Amino acid sequence: MNLDKMVLQAIKYARGQLEILDQLKLPHAEEYDHIYSSTDAWHAIKEMRTRGAPAIAIVAALALAVELENMKLSSIAEEVKVFIDEKLEYLITSRPTAVNLADAARKLSKVVDAAATKTNASGSDVKNAYIEAAEQMLVADVQDNEAIGRHGAEWILKNTEAGQKGQVSVLTHCNTGSLATAGYGTALGVIRSLNSKGSLKHAFCTETRPYNQGSRLTAFELVHEKIPATLITDSMAAALLRLKGPTENVAAIVVGADRVAANGDTANKIGTYSLAIAARHHGVKFLVAAPRTTIDLGTKSGKNIVIEERPGKEVTLIKGPRHDGVSLDLNVVETVSIAANGIGVWNPAFDVTPAELIDGVITEVGVVEKDSEGVFHLDGIFGDNNYEVRPSTVGGV
Amino acid sequence: MNLDKMVLQAIKYARGQLEILDQLKLPHAEEYDHIYSSTDAWHAIKEMRTRGAPAIAIVAALALAVELENMKLSSIAEEVKVFIDEKLEYLITSRPTAVNLADAARKLSKVVDAAATKTNASGSDVKNAYIEAAEQMLVADVQDNEAIGRHGAEWILKNTEAGQKGQVSVLTHCNTGSLATAGYGTALGVIRSLNSKGSLKHAFCTETRPYNQGSRLTAFELVHEKIPATLITDSMAAALLRLKGPTENVAAIVVGADRVAANGDTANKIGTYSLAIAARHHGVKFLVAAPRTTIDLGTKSGKNIVIEERPGKEVTLIKGPRHDGVSLDLNVVETVSIAANGIGVWNPAFDVTPAELIDGVITEVGVVEKDSEGVFHLDGIFGDNNYEVRPSTVGGV
Repeated sequence: MNLDKMVLQAIKYARGQLEILDQLKLPHAEEYDHIYSSTDAWHAIKEMRTRGAPAIAIVAALALAVELENMKLSSIAEEVKVFIDEKLEYLITSRPTAVNLADAARKLSKVVDAAATKTNASGSDVKNAYIEAAEQMLVADVQDNEAIGRHGAEWILKNTEAGQKGQVSVLTHCNTGSLATAGYGTALGVIRSLNSKGSLKHAFCTETRPYNQGSRLTAFELVHEKIPATLITDSMAAALLRLKGPTENVAAIVVGADRVAANGDTANKIGTYSLAIAARHHGVKFLVAAPRTTIDLGTKSGKNIVIEERPGKEVTLIKGPRHDGVSLDLNVVETVSIAANGIGVWNPAFDVTPAELIDGVITEVGVVEKDSEGVFHLDGIFGDNNYEVRPSTVGGV
Repeated sequence: MNLDKMVLQAIKYARGQLEILDQLKLPHAEEYDHIYSSTDAWHAIKEMRTRGAPAIAIVAALALAVELENMKLSSIAEEVKVFIDEKLEYLITSRPTAVNLADAARKLSKVVDAAATKTNASGSDVKNAYIEAAEQMLVADVQDNEAIGRHGAEWILKNTEAGQKGQVSVLTHCNTGSLATAGYGTALGVIRSLNSKGSLKHAFCTETRPYNQGSRLTAFELVHEKIPATLITDSMAAALLRLKGPTENVAAIVVGADRVAANGDTANKIGTYSLAIAARHHGVKFLVAAPRTTIDLGTKSGKNIVIEERPGKEVTLIKGPRHDGVSLDLNVVETVSIAANGIGVWNPAFDVTPAELIDGVITEVGVVEKDSEGVFHLDGIFGDNNYEVRPSTVGGV
């Protein structure tokens, strides 16, 4: 199994080999770090060289797979099982708050336990069961994202006026691409899919203040893959729809999600709600792209989602490589202040867009639309077992 | 005449004395430069230490007034007239594209010409006529702004649900304050007026990407005058209305204008249009504060306004004093990159908000509302002569 030929990846894996894109150096330098062991992964996660909840879990899982593949293991199943469990426990401590990481570790531990208790199981059997399960996580996450991209692209081309006319343009927010997932991305996956079909006229991305995931990461991915793209400030989105909507044939705004409530209300990066209002005002479709694992049927509506407020300095200070007036010095990263001293700041990390403003939720099994009464039935995409099978974003283990 | 006791001013003037706030050092240092002559003013304008179209014209006019007050002049009227005209021509070259500056110079030259041709006019008469006219420009601009503030505050308290309930909160965009005008400001003047009445609960200002006039200048003014205020990113405005609108009793979004067309369509700093859509979505009033001189009856509608597109680097690079992780070093100003290399950028300097989304235009003679058919009659606020008397923003010369 070699996934190297895929589009830009935060994670490059082949059996016995793992490299991760150092996201601390993005967008100005594109450097991969070799990960040889769970210790390497622990440090990469701790230091934020890898980010994105699904990506972290997969890096941890694969790092241990690489370590197991390359080391001399005991031939005794139980000893290998204990070794793996200890390493998984250790990996969890790299980011104790990451639900996906703990969840992935728990599932992998179950797989290992099952393998170790089989009659005549050898150490090698346990190792192989682990490695295959870890690899399956990577494959499943990428496959889910590719399916999201495909469903989203098809829906846009079929269900928008712009789509009937020909190549469409799409605006997206924040980073939902290869850098935030195991690969391909969710909302950015829809743009990738349109582009690979020859159906994308132009991609627009917001800079996504205050953390600039759009200008740093999404713009990086778009440039990297030579997708025709333009960066705007968040404040320009409405003007874009008004001034360029017709000429650029803008069909939709597509965003990712932190959490989709049972009624379709969607928590996502701050600024999403503003885009949804602008889309509605201009009659442009507003779509949320998210795997089913992001849909939380246990959260009834947006009212049940608590908005995290973050430090004001994320708004008032900004970091990047130094520009001397002529060129960038990638070796010197500076932080500068962009606001008056003493001003109070409100910095909600995300906002909630009500289902009323959302035209569809793009999942790996298809696009969910509202019924004639404007109600999403998101429970319909979870089979009786499916929901139990995929309670997190780490894929089909 | 001493205007020193007024609120924060870009321009401090008393006869024979002029100081300007060095806006290149804002918001991190508040330093006034003495301006002794037209040469000093020429350099201050050229180097952007003073900014804002009305402010530039007034600084130029007052600088020459200071120079005339303090120098030994000829007793011959015609000689003083020629001296003044030469200085005015010279001052215009500091910013040849500034319509207000050339316009002010033309008017002042007329005043001087009239004074010099009076019977028995002395050099001193011509000088005094000039100084009085220049001082009148400053007074008139500040008075107009104070009237805008008063009318806007009264209208908000009377015509909004929030205003009926008690203290109101207001959101503003960009910088329209003392730093952009001769003093007090337009949209920020409305906030000042509400605050001085004890009717302001809280002011919110957007950072106003890409040039951050909100976080740098408006935030500075609000902190300076201890007006209760909070900075948000442009992308947070809609979430603010949704989450804090009721608790903060947000009554209105008030913005300034670059140009108001005859039908009320308003060109203003990029991001204004997005705020207007959000205001409408939340049933919050959206008001434009502008002196009549900004209303251009010669421009029929927003369709006749060409949008200036500016360099992409204004979006991708950002400048400010260096922060070492603990504190700011005001002596070291750095520029950093905040976007991926090679990404295309669309950077419109302003956008046009259609009259349909505007609830009122606050002028120095009152707030203009639409008629029952949703049409603004802005020509109604120009008397037959008034419009001729005040064709620019430099006040009542």
